[in-house]
Amino acid sequence: MPRLQKSCALNAVPFTKVALEDNFWACRLQINHKYTVPAIYRKCKETGRIGAFLLHDSSGTGSKVHPFWDSDVAKWIEAASYSLAVHPDPELESLIDDVIDKIASVQQEDGYLNTYYTVAEPEYRWKKLAFGHELYCAGHLIEAAVAHYQTTGKTKFLDVIRRYADYIDSVFGSGKRNGYPGHPEIELALVKLYRLTGEKRYLNLSKFFLDRRGQSPSVFKSEMGNLPFEHTKFYRRFFNTGENFNTQYCQDHLPVREQVEAVGHAVRAMYLYFGMADVAVETEDDELFAACKRLWKDITKKRMYVTGGIGSSTDNEGFTHPYDLPNRSAYAETCAAIGLVFFAHRMLQLAPDSRYADVMERALYNGVISGVSLDGEKFFYDNPLESRGDHHRQEWFDCACCPPNIARLMASVGGYVYSQAESDAYVHLYVQGTGELQVGGQKVLLRQKTDYPWNGRIKISVEPEQATMFGLNLRIPGWSRKVEIRVNGESIDVNVNSKKGYSRIEREWKSGDTVEIIFPMPIERIAANPAVRKDIGHVVLQRGPIIYCLEECDQEVSPSQIVLPIDADLQIEFDEELLGGVALITGVAKALDTSDWHDELYRNTAIKMKPCKITAVPYYTWDNRSPGEMRVWIRSL
Amino acid sequence: MPRLQKSCALNAVPFTKVALEDNFWACRLQINHKYTVPAIYRKCKETGRIGAFLLHDSSGTGSKVHPFWDSDVAKWIEAASYSLAVHPDPELESLIDDVIDKIASVQQEDGYLNTYYTVAEPEYRWKKLAFGHELYCAGHLIEAAVAHYQTTGKTKFLDVIRRYADYIDSVFGSGKRNGYPGHPEIELALVKLYRLTGEKRYLNLSKFFLDRRGQSPSVFKSEMGNLPFEHTKFYRRFFNTGENFNTQYCQDHLPVREQVEAVGHAVRAMYLYFGMADVAVETEDDELFAACKRLWKDITKKRMYVTGGIGSSTDNEGFTHPYDLPNRSAYAETCAAIGLVFFAHRMLQLAPDSRYADVMERALYNGVISGVSLDGEKFFYDNPLESRGDHHRQEWFDCACCPPNIARLMASVGGYVYSQAESDAYVHLYVQGTGELQVGGQKVLLRQKTDYPWNGRIKISVEPEQATMFGLNLRIPGWSRKVEIRVNGESIDVNVNSKKGYSRIEREWKSGDTVEIIFPMPIERIAANPAVRKDIGHVVLQRGPIIYCLEECDQEVSPSQIVLPIDADLQIEFDEELLGGVALITGVAKALDTSDWHDELYRNTAIKMKPCKITAVPYYTWDNRSPGEMRVWIRSL
Repeated sequence: MPRLQKSCALNAVPFTKVALEDNFWACRLQINHKYTVPAIYRKCKETGRIGAFLLHDSSGTGSKVHPFWDSDVAKWIEAASYSLAVHPDPELESLIDDVIDKIASVQQEDGYLNTYYTVAEPEYRWKKLAFGHELYCAGHLIEAAVAHYQTTGKTKFLDVIRRYADYIDSVFGSGKRNGYPGHPEIELALVKLYRLTGEKRYLNLSKFFLDRRGQSPSVFKSEMGNLPFEHTKFYRRFFNTGENFNTQYCQDHLPVREQVEAVGHAVRAMYLYFGMADVAVETEDDELFAACKRLWKDITKKRMYVTGGIGSSTDNEGFTHPYDLPNRSAYAETCAAIGLVFFAHRMLQLAPDSRYADVMERALYNGVISGVSLDGEKFFYDNPLESRGDHHRQEWFDCACCPPNIARLMASVGGYVYSQAESDAYVHLYVQGTGELQVGGQKVLLRQKTDYPWNGRIKISVEPEQATMFGLNLRIPGWSRKVEIRVNGESIDVNVNSKKGYSRIEREWKSGDTVEIIFPMPIERIAANPAVRKDIGHVVLQRGPIIYCLEECDQEVSPSQIVLPIDADLQIEFDEELLGGVALITGVAKALDTSDWHDELYRNTAIKMKPCKITAVPYYTWDNRSPGEMRVWIRSL
Repeated sequence: MPRLQKSCALNAVPFTKVALEDNFWACRLQINHKYTVPAIYRKCKETGRIGAFLLHDSSGTGSKVHPFWDSDVAKWIEAASYSLAVHPDPELESLIDDVIDKIASVQQEDGYLNTYYTVAEPEYRWKKLAFGHELYCAGHLIEAAVAHYQTTGKTKFLDVIRRYADYIDSVFGSGKRNGYPGHPEIELALVKLYRLTGEKRYLNLSKFFLDRRGQSPSVFKSEMGNLPFEHTKFYRRFFNTGENFNTQYCQDHLPVREQVEAVGHAVRAMYLYFGMADVAVETEDDELFAACKRLWKDITKKRMYVTGGIGSSTDNEGFTHPYDLPNRSAYAETCAAIGLVFFAHRMLQLAPDSRYADVMERALYNGVISGVSLDGEKFFYDNPLESRGDHHRQEWFDCACCPPNIARLMASVGGYVYSQAESDAYVHLYVQGTGELQVGGQKVLLRQKTDYPWNGRIKISVEPEQATMFGLNLRIPGWSRKVEIRVNGESIDVNVNSKKGYSRIEREWKSGDTVEIIFPMPIERIAANPAVRKDIGHVVLQRGPIIYCLEECDQEVSPSQIVLPIDADLQIEFDEELLGGVALITGVAKALDTSDWHDELYRNTAIKMKPCKITAVPYYTWDNRSPGEMRVWIRSL
């Protein structure tokens, strides 16, 4: 196996170099800018999250400042900054500056910057690392500051936050304080800061936090011991505080290099693994990378919903045992699916393999964007795969991590489309629009024309500044069963140069060259591994990357009474008006014929079935119309 | 509709007049006598329940005396007394006398008799009616005393308990204290005491407890208000103690005559309805009887498992919403199924109708006897209809209501077989053996010869002392689709004289007359009402009254992977050795062919099925062999 080399890693093409010009993502970005980003700001203001930076315990809202409020505002700045880069908006820009001023005003003499521990519990600074979200908030402030600088060129926020990072570096590290966050986040943020500034101490600190994790006994054991009993509620709730003190909930049960199974809180896990992957590549650490690969495999082979959702249990907002993927009680937090996209995207740069891109695509088109309503103003925290009609998006949550998280991902989704390397260009996702890559010392414009995800025909114009030799790597999605590729009209043998799910076409590319790719998109019936008990005897309808569901409002009977015969004829119908424009799947299935049931609870006559028209809609669009039952997994005959 | 008249009600033939001589119940009664009754005594002693009557707070066991301990011992006395009547056993008789002496020694000057409120909380006598189990324990003591007197003729225990009942009557009643038990039981016990003694005040007190129930506001509201906060845990846990103070948990939300839906804790509900039915007939109260009929209908049409289990939720050990009958998480407490048998049996005497007997039979042969292991020494508290192999019978429970409850029912099960009336004999259950009835002023012996429940042929010899005219009423089970009846070899037209599920044969019966009944017993596939979501697409195998299940140890693959095609050929095989002798259902079904699944979590190839032999065993026998998965509801094609 080749050693991990930083110089061989791909570089993701930043979203600022990618223009999305399609009917799927481009309008989502518009809605994100026009509705989601402002809505989140309003909520942050209304709930006292902005006012908290005035360092009052509450700002007339009746709410008390909360340990993770700073992160909500930071993620909003990150989302707003990204959005600004694509949609210039002076009003928004000055609003961001105003919030940054408020944040800066809170910074303490020593560089420290956290509203909660400044206002509410100054005596507990760094004393509640397990559940206090202090380093977590710091991580989000760092990400926000990096984003703000990169998209506006303004240095104020970055300067403030570097002072804070420097202060944190003065507190934690070898020969300094031994500790790390209960909720990972700062690890990945510090690598971003390192990459921007070139300051190696940020990378070192990130590595320190990673390497100290999983000591035995956990540092959180003595931390808990030093807290008054009434401050240890979360320790008692989420850790096993008995004889075998266990902090699996926050992936602190083993040194990260020794971890094999994805455990505990799913968002914590994703942010941790993201950080591990980044530190692995920056330090060329094969052992750390091997751990990432093991954990990746464990998640995607045993613990992932067909929507890309992860973390099946509400109890720990996280992982349980392999193949435990209940549908109605699925937690599948929006933030966890977003975290999986982050992790997939990092892995993809380290070791180009379409399995990473497949999962990234699966989550993006399904379990991530299900998290926000089509109008951009309501959010799912948990994304079940079955509902009795009682699960709906909300405008806000007390713990509001998901709304700004989806806003920042949406605003920067262009950054997931392409990667570049010395002499290779990569197309991971098919989206109409352009990407400006640097390949072989050249600026190379890739221009995609496609109706993806509704149609699998893609035409890519390759436009290098000057004719130049490089490999164009085209992802062959895992869902496709055959593919046809034509270069300037001539078919190529896809298999010859396929590697790890990418078809590599190496040639001297010159302006005017075109590549046509055709992935037929039949309607597929997807089955789950038989170890997933809840899905036995059920199928999912999938077409291209889109996972479908049955919503009650489209059916003649309750979705729970529908059975899909194996030979049922299904059609695709494109409806431009419905749900922002979607391809529907329609057909005739069977339903229980309940007409001759009266009030008997049990009876010994045969079950009668009747034909029944069905209409399936993309999962991500559910709960945007009248409330009702929903099912992703359909009973199958 | 005919008015309820006490003189028209049937009288159940007591178990002391019924000899069971079959291979099903008779050996269960033996095991109950030989193993279950002694095992319960041992546990009562080990855990301090017997010693508690020495009025120490604990008796060297480390356990603290508990509010419902008295009831466990009382139910043991009831079970042991019944068992004694059929299996003379001087050693057991003197053991019972010894325990009765201990109980008697605890009686206070004023007649009061409760270990917990004498030893542990004397200051709370009658102050915790909602959750204190004080009147509940009194009820069980009364039932035990009645049983002991009826089976031994000894008066000591009855005298003690009558003094206690008289004392309770001096405390509660019109113009006295306004209150009633949170856990009904004393209501039905007082009717038993009234029937034995003829003392009307016991009936009046029972009626008082029933009629006071469901006041607004509940008496439990002020009761809670008078308790220190730390004593109100259960009120806060099980009642809605908010603005709309609601005591639905113990059927105290409405006056009993106005209740329409079965709500709350299932055992409380059954004991309440049992008491209501008894008071209804004794006082010829049509309104109360109408309430019983409504509640019966609600339970059996919307809230009953196919095993006769009721109370689907662990949370309240009780009822939830109509048709909410999950299988794996089914609570279906053994005591609740027993309570349903009690309630059914009372209703059957008031208004002979095979619907009552059908439910009684369903519960007895399935969800009741599943509660005890075949060796008689281990017990299920909850009786799920699906298991992953992690649910097993235990020797005992801290809250040990189920073991002595099943022991007392088992020892007296003969009492559920026959009823008698002025000029009618009723056969409700088919069991080999004899019943000695009083009909038309005559002693009439009914002698059944049958292999029921394994075979639907029954031969009944009718043996009156002298030839006499009366109606012999034979139950036509709800599960049977056709029936043939021959009197002295000649077929009769069953439909002519069938009424409410009983075929009435009126004639002058003389010794030597025989009746043959043939119910064909094909293997039936039972479906649930489509409103039971969890059972859609599933069937249950039933033959005669027996509900079957798939246990993992009998199958080639996991029961969760088995699908039963609608045309699968199924056979009956009688195995005399297995599980105490059972009829097995065998056949070839289909199973997921998992041979070509590797580690993919999802894939788009068709699901392959392979033939798979299956063996189903009676539900009541499950978990008596090696632990493993179990399913009652089988997926069906």
